Amino acid sequence: MDYSDVLRNAGTLLEKMRRAAPLVHCLTNHVVTNFTANALMAAGGAPAMIHDPEEAGIFAGVANALLVNLGTLEREQAQAMRAAVQAAVAAGRPWVLDPVAVGALPFRTDFAREMLALKPSLVRGNASEILALSGGKKGGRGVDSVDSVLDAEAAARALAEQTGGAVLVTGAVDLVTMAGRPESVLCCNGTPLLTRVTGVGCSQGAIAAALCACCERDWLMAGATAALLVGLAGEVAESETRRPGSFQIAFLDALDEVDAELILRSGKGAVET
Amino acid sequence: MDYSDVLRNAGTLLEKMRRAAPLVHCLTNHVVTNFTANALMAAGGAPAMIHDPEEAGIFAGVANALLVNLGTLEREQAQAMRAAVQAAVAAGRPWVLDPVAVGALPFRTDFAREMLALKPSLVRGNASEILALSGGKKGGRGVDSVDSVLDAEAAARALAEQTGGAVLVTGAVDLVTMAGRPESVLCCNGTPLLTRVTGVGCSQGAIAAALCACCERDWLMAGATAALLVGLAGEVAESETRRPGSFQIAFLDALDEVDAELILRSGKGAVET
Amino acid sequence: MDYSDVLRNAGTLLEKMRRAAPLVHCLTNHVVTNFTANALMAAGGAPAMIHDPEEAGIFAGVANALLVNLGTLEREQAQAMRAAVQAAVAAGRPWVLDPVAVGALPFRTDFAREMLALKPSLVRGNASEILALSGGKKGGRGVDSVDSVLDAEAAARALAEQTGGAVLVTGAVDLVTMAGRPESVLCCNGTPLLTRVTGVGCSQGAIAAALCACCERDWLMAGATAALLVGLAGEVAESETRRPGSFQIAFLDALDEVDAELILRSGKGAVET
Repeated sequence: MDYSDVLRNAGTLLEKMRRAAPLVHCLTNHVVTNFTANALMAAGGAPAMIHDPEEAGIFAGVANALLVNLGTLEREQAQAMRAAVQAAVAAGRPWVLDPVAVGALPFRTDFAREMLALKPSLVRGNASEILALSGGKKGGRGVDSVDSVLDAEAAARALAEQTGGAVLVTGAVDLVTMAGRPESVLCCNGTPLLTRVTGVGCSQGAIAAALCACCERDWLMAGATAALLVGLAGEVAESETRRPGSFQIAFLDALDEVDAELILRSGKGAVET
Repeated sequence: MDYSDVLRNAGTLLEKMRRAAPLVHCLTNHVVTNFTANALMAAGGAPAMIHDPEEAGIFAGVANALLVNLGTLEREQAQAMRAAVQAAVAAGRPWVLDPVAVGALPFRTDFAREMLALKPSLVRGNASEILALSGGKKGGRGVDSVDSVLDAEAAARALAEQTGGAVLVTGAVDLVTMAGRPESVLCCNGTPLLTRVTGVGCSQGAIAAALCACCERDWLMAGATAALLVGLAGEVAESETRRPGSFQIAFLDALDEVDAELILRSGKGAVET
Repeated sequence: MDYSDVLRNAGTLLEKMRRAAPLVHCLTNHVVTNFTANALMAAGGAPAMIHDPEEAGIFAGVANALLVNLGTLEREQAQAMRAAVQAAVAAGRPWVLDPVAVGALPFRTDFAREMLALKPSLVRGNASEILALSGGKKGGRGVDSVDSVLDAEAAARALAEQTGGAVLVTGAVDLVTMAGRPESVLCCNGTPLLTRVTGVGCSQGAIAAALCACCERDWLMAGATAALLVGLAGEVAESETRRPGSFQIAFLDALDEVDAELILRSGKGAVET
């Protein structure tokens, strides 16, 4: 596989996802619920957010995929997440774990480790979070990553082997690895403006879950497609505006606009083996 | 009453509501709180969201109307909703029930039935939700309706007779019925883009509550005006943009812009008897 | 100190804050989490929102400043706020209290008084809230203030003496006082459109907290700078649009755009002694 294959396969997967409009059950943090729902719809998926532990457990088996994001984890939400993940796993649905700010904070770090044992199809995090999850150093200051993506490659690979799924490490460059696959995919699209809008990374987790519902267990490709879509949408939005409020809106528009052709023409990155 | 009367009365009610700027206590889902508050203000009302069960009970008697939306129902929120509805009813305030995703999920379905006994002035839902509430078939997949509005007319009529209030069924066409009124009002404005933004329907519930505070118990007219305002605002926004991010913003602008004259000139629909 | 000093010092503080990008732990209401995070980032700070009581306590000592906003106070959130304020105080971090809707509602009014004893660096509220907090009359209808800012000057001054910090009273004119300082600063920038977007005042509290992290205990200057930045950003946004949806976005853009030079050139107000 070289990078032109990645670009071609990503475009095909994106179009397939848009035709299916998979329903993604999002158990995510209070800060980004609205933006995540709108970003997921703009990208082509369908959101649902069911919080009650009993209902969350039922609903995860109805939805096509599940997102678990720990950004504002509380005891009751943890209960809903446990029920939802168990139901998703029992129903054979893919699920994505976004371990926001793990490392420095003990409750979510312990919970993230518990979740890992339930084998997420994909883990999405910044370098600090991936390093902390794989047992390494303490995390950074919340969602900001103080470590570089490439420094986290070995940790990502170890984490993927542990879960049997894929790991997407995001930053200035995005890196995807998957258990049993020798290659790592590096995606180089994006803009620093993406870090000036709350919830871009969190909504990428929801989009990745939608892609997982359509990728026939090629979690590596789901992660790479999520990285390409968000990075390219950022570039399209940046060509419209450089201020953060209007960038947020232009980014949502661009999630709707980016297609297989734009990915093939503008996607930048590499495959390492 | 023919449809030109509906349009004239809707314009009059909208202007009356904007002069009064009624305070609407919104107990709604976590995904749409911000958008609901902004949409309600753009339309001319004033939002307040008080969550604590004790405070919610007190506040519902201070506000001019109440919205209860079950989108992310949890046990503690259900407690706040019970207290708020009882206080609103005791104070003679109108209240709106939005039974998001009832049918498939048992906790909210039981709770919605309990709420119905407290006789909402208006129930707003899609066809699947209205069918499920009136005791018919199971619901759809979250907020998406898999049933058509016209299929739900008999269920809407039965539900209205049960509550003594009005029922607004929303979809490609919107339908409003009210207990003791032989006619149904059909509103045909709108655009499919309205389904690509999270919270449009939920914010319509808040706007309907504001209109209920000013309609002198003509809940049918409050429902029809909410349908017209949202449908026309969608059309105005669509004339600006066809991408979902900028459409969301243009929709908020259009809620502020639509007035009695535009309703009279552009409202499309029919009265069935 | 005359008002030209205020403008010069505000510009200097704003630039210092942008270089430091202080991390602000925001324990705020469910309606404005997303908007607050985006507004804080647009202004130059960095947001984090950690809700679990145990984690909130730990995190407040890691962050550079803390915001406590009572808009949708619930029992569990009150617990997280207690832990966070104690940790912030123990670590010598500044913290801001935004006592939304205190007065009419007993739970939050009692809690706000409890919080006052922990001596916030800055209290931000409208005139009704400041009057209610300082022991005077009952509050207004939620976030709307029925009292004028100048009527609240004595109450603000008494409250500042009680806490040893500053008090920012916002309205058509904004007023800042501080314990031990004879002068009051009046800031006159702004537009009524700022009241048509949910969360402007709440996000001003987060911005004020970021400024408190960089002002070397000159809380008066932090409050005045927050007032100037928000007022001027409103004016810049109003020059772009007069509809509420697009104004919200233009306001976020303007928080990024307003700088020391614009403050010096366009800031309007007075210093009273």
